[in-house]
Amino acid sequence: MSERADTAEPRPDEERIDDLPLEEAESSHDEDDRLKPEFVAAVREAAEEGDGERARELVSPLHPADIADLLELVPSEERGAVAAALGDLVGAEVLSELNDYVRDDLLGALAPRQVAEFAAELDTDDAVAIIEDLEEEDQQAVLDALDPEDRAAIESALSYPEESAGRLMQRDLVAVPEHMTVGQVIDYLRDNRDLTSDFWEIFVVDEQHRPIGTCQLSWILTCPRAIAMADLMKREQTLIPVDMDQEEVALRFQKYALISAAVVDASGRLVGMITVDDIVHIISEEAGEDILRLSGAGEGDINEPVMDSYRARVRWLLTNLLTALVASTIIGIFEGTIEKMVALATLMPIVAGVGGNAGSQTMAVTVRALATNQITGTNTRRTILREIRVALLNGATVALVLGIGVSLVFWNGHLGVVIAAAMMTNIVTAGLAGAAVPLAFDRLNLDPAVASSIFVTMITDSMGFLAFLGLATAAGLTG
Amino acid sequence: MSERADTAEPRPDEERIDDLPLEEAESSHDEDDRLKPEFVAAVREAAEEGDGERARELVSPLHPADIADLLELVPSEERGAVAAALGDLVGAEVLSELNDYVRDDLLGALAPRQVAEFAAELDTDDAVAIIEDLEEEDQQAVLDALDPEDRAAIESALSYPEESAGRLMQRDLVAVPEHMTVGQVIDYLRDNRDLTSDFWEIFVVDEQHRPIGTCQLSWILTCPRAIAMADLMKREQTLIPVDMDQEEVALRFQKYALISAAVVDASGRLVGMITVDDIVHIISEEAGEDILRLSGAGEGDINEPVMDSYRARVRWLLTNLLTALVASTIIGIFEGTIEKMVALATLMPIVAGVGGNAGSQTMAVTVRALATNQITGTNTRRTILREIRVALLNGATVALVLGIGVSLVFWNGHLGVVIAAAMMTNIVTAGLAGAAVPLAFDRLNLDPAVASSIFVTMITDSMGFLAFLGLATAAGLTG
Repeated sequence: MSERADTAEPRPDEERIDDLPLEEAESSHDEDDRLKPEFVAAVREAAEEGDGERARELVSPLHPADIADLLELVPSEERGAVAAALGDLVGAEVLSELNDYVRDDLLGALAPRQVAEFAAELDTDDAVAIIEDLEEEDQQAVLDALDPEDRAAIESALSYPEESAGRLMQRDLVAVPEHMTVGQVIDYLRDNRDLTSDFWEIFVVDEQHRPIGTCQLSWILTCPRAIAMADLMKREQTLIPVDMDQEEVALRFQKYALISAAVVDASGRLVGMITVDDIVHIISEEAGEDILRLSGAGEGDINEPVMDSYRARVRWLLTNLLTALVASTIIGIFEGTIEKMVALATLMPIVAGVGGNAGSQTMAVTVRALATNQITGTNTRRTILREIRVALLNGATVALVLGIGVSLVFWNGHLGVVIAAAMMTNIVTAGLAGAAVPLAFDRLNLDPAVASSIFVTMITDSMGFLAFLGLATAAGLTG
Repeated sequence: MSERADTAEPRPDEERIDDLPLEEAESSHDEDDRLKPEFVAAVREAAEEGDGERARELVSPLHPADIADLLELVPSEERGAVAAALGDLVGAEVLSELNDYVRDDLLGALAPRQVAEFAAELDTDDAVAIIEDLEEEDQQAVLDALDPEDRAAIESALSYPEESAGRLMQRDLVAVPEHMTVGQVIDYLRDNRDLTSDFWEIFVVDEQHRPIGTCQLSWILTCPRAIAMADLMKREQTLIPVDMDQEEVALRFQKYALISAAVVDASGRLVGMITVDDIVHIISEEAGEDILRLSGAGEGDINEPVMDSYRARVRWLLTNLLTALVASTIIGIFEGTIEKMVALATLMPIVAGVGGNAGSQTMAVTVRALATNQITGTNTRRTILREIRVALLNGATVALVLGIGVSLVFWNGHLGVVIAAAMMTNIVTAGLAGAAVPLAFDRLNLDPAVASSIFVTMITDSMGFLAFLGLATAAGLTG
């Protein structure tokens, strides 16, 4: 790779530049940095033909993250064979990059000793990610096969709740007392060859091993040797309690633009470090999962077994069936009205549907704002009022268009006024419900993304039918 | 703060530990790290009473990111007064952390010279973020007030497309030739005091200033002085072309767990550096915006002016009105059937509604998988088949429950069979459409999140009414 960079001519096309890490970049990746179907097919073919050498030749230029992508793209029934053909190329790093479901699939085929070998190669946090999803029994077998030091570290991590800082942190870090000088720190780092070599900040601790400051490596490198750490370090720091939820951790990293942070136990002692590269995928996951939760799609992972997806989603659809009964019951009340004027049955889904859409808009905005901590007690009322103002404008516009259209098509001004009034009512209701329902769930410490949409849909459906059919009846349209 | 950490007793409660960076942490933040309403109220009160000293006293312990939050939480009509009361505390860093809309609001009140002073204090990328959203005229005035060097850097950044790597990168970086040794690099860093002191990796370049390797600072600190950079650096690196879209950049940082990356121009020369702290908020934004796009909520920012939100959303609702007409027209075809059996009008929204929900689930899963590059040509067909299998299971379950329920309630087995068959048909259609529509848009290089839901809803609504009313007619239910 570096050879190519050395001798490269000016390269105007993006693909060739941004894929520099991979020797066969042009042939393995498309312009979006995804593996090309032809490349994946070639590897599958080689594996199928038992030509492990060819498979390894193709794959060896890839980054571990890309090898993980490759295994995810291979159909599950071929995955074991492809992994076997690739041999050592499927190392611990690849495993730690793999999608959870795909990894479980692969690990299931390995002996505990092999899994233990992988785990031993990794930082504690990555090893824990591999082991935590195994069945109890397999987990124990892998732990038994580890050497005592690795085992103790992993067991200790596993003792923290799932998705907590304790699971995310690594124990290998550099902590020094504040009286050390820059020169002494550099000498200490050079002399202790078994220290981790992957760290971005040094933590300064007191005698009780409690963090009192942080020092970026760049500050150490740009300072004279005689400067004391106490004078160089930044005293304001964001400490992460070991039991903090990973979503909170991700929000702190984002808000304070952290590269790494000290993790402390209940007594304030430094027990580990979390680095931003372990956080970026959590930030993405947490931000992306609201969309899945709002629609009741569960984990929403395309690698999830079909039966798991079915169980998660059917529960939601059955709940939806119940709430749809509410809307249906409301229509039932007005059967007599509909009998007299079937056009009402034709038009009523419009009022419910557009209202539902308006509710989704407000709900999406509110759920995102809650997830990013933008709404607090200070601006809750203001946020709801803002949504109502937008809803009034939306409602007026849509009602006007719909009212005029219906008046003209059915040549019935009364019907036009009734449907316009119903539409206006439903869009304003949608704006209110779309903001208030998620806010109420959040206040009750329930996840607003999970519970809101069932309620909001029920409200906009019911109100849509009620307002339209009710107003039509009250206006004596059919009389 | 550090004093408290020094003398602290064991502190079991999370709030006190994780807010250590702020001296008045207990009184300003709640357990989710959000500013408490009482705290915001106290600052607003002080500002209103003209007691700037009190306001500054309250706010001075806050991190710039928290001061930005504070200004966002203050109602827009008071914002200018609060910012004025806080004086110097609202510095360049606070501005760069502010929500775009809130910042424009505040900057509008400042003279170009003041904005220029802020911009001069910041890294290029943050300065660009502040200036890029100003009106053309104001932008020019600010640029004129900058000193020539800052101005050139910012103008050059502004010459790259919006949301591209060129806008995100900073120019202050450390690049060294490969023949230098670790010792020489350290001496160079110590001697050049006007180098940036915020960097995490050093780039190694050839004579044409093209990056040929990257070196983490921790490797430099843990190595003897005599080692050559050429032997220490990692040659595989992810280079970012200067015109790459920020969403792509974010995906690279995520996939390859980058802390910083070199930005290169079309001829492969190193022109800047992007660091992960500037990327985390983009990762979160990009992952979170799909939910807003799917519902047609535009930017979906609670700080957006009401008229902007109205314009973005009403366009979507009017489009939705059009597609609802399609469903309405289908119902119209069956007016005769409904007239004979009004119960059909009562039940038909159930088939359409639950189908719509099933479509949303599949669509959410597909849109997320596309956004995270999990779907390629290799697994497109497999993904669609997977969704259809889930849909068959969901459809069978929901159809069975609904069919039995309707048979019993209406004491009409025929009606039960018809609604079950319609439900099954619609859920399978929803699964197919929910997967295929976003995939098709992606294939056409259109954003699947923006365009899909209008189509999928239209399909599930229409199919819901068509299948139910059509089967009812065909089965001679009303005959």
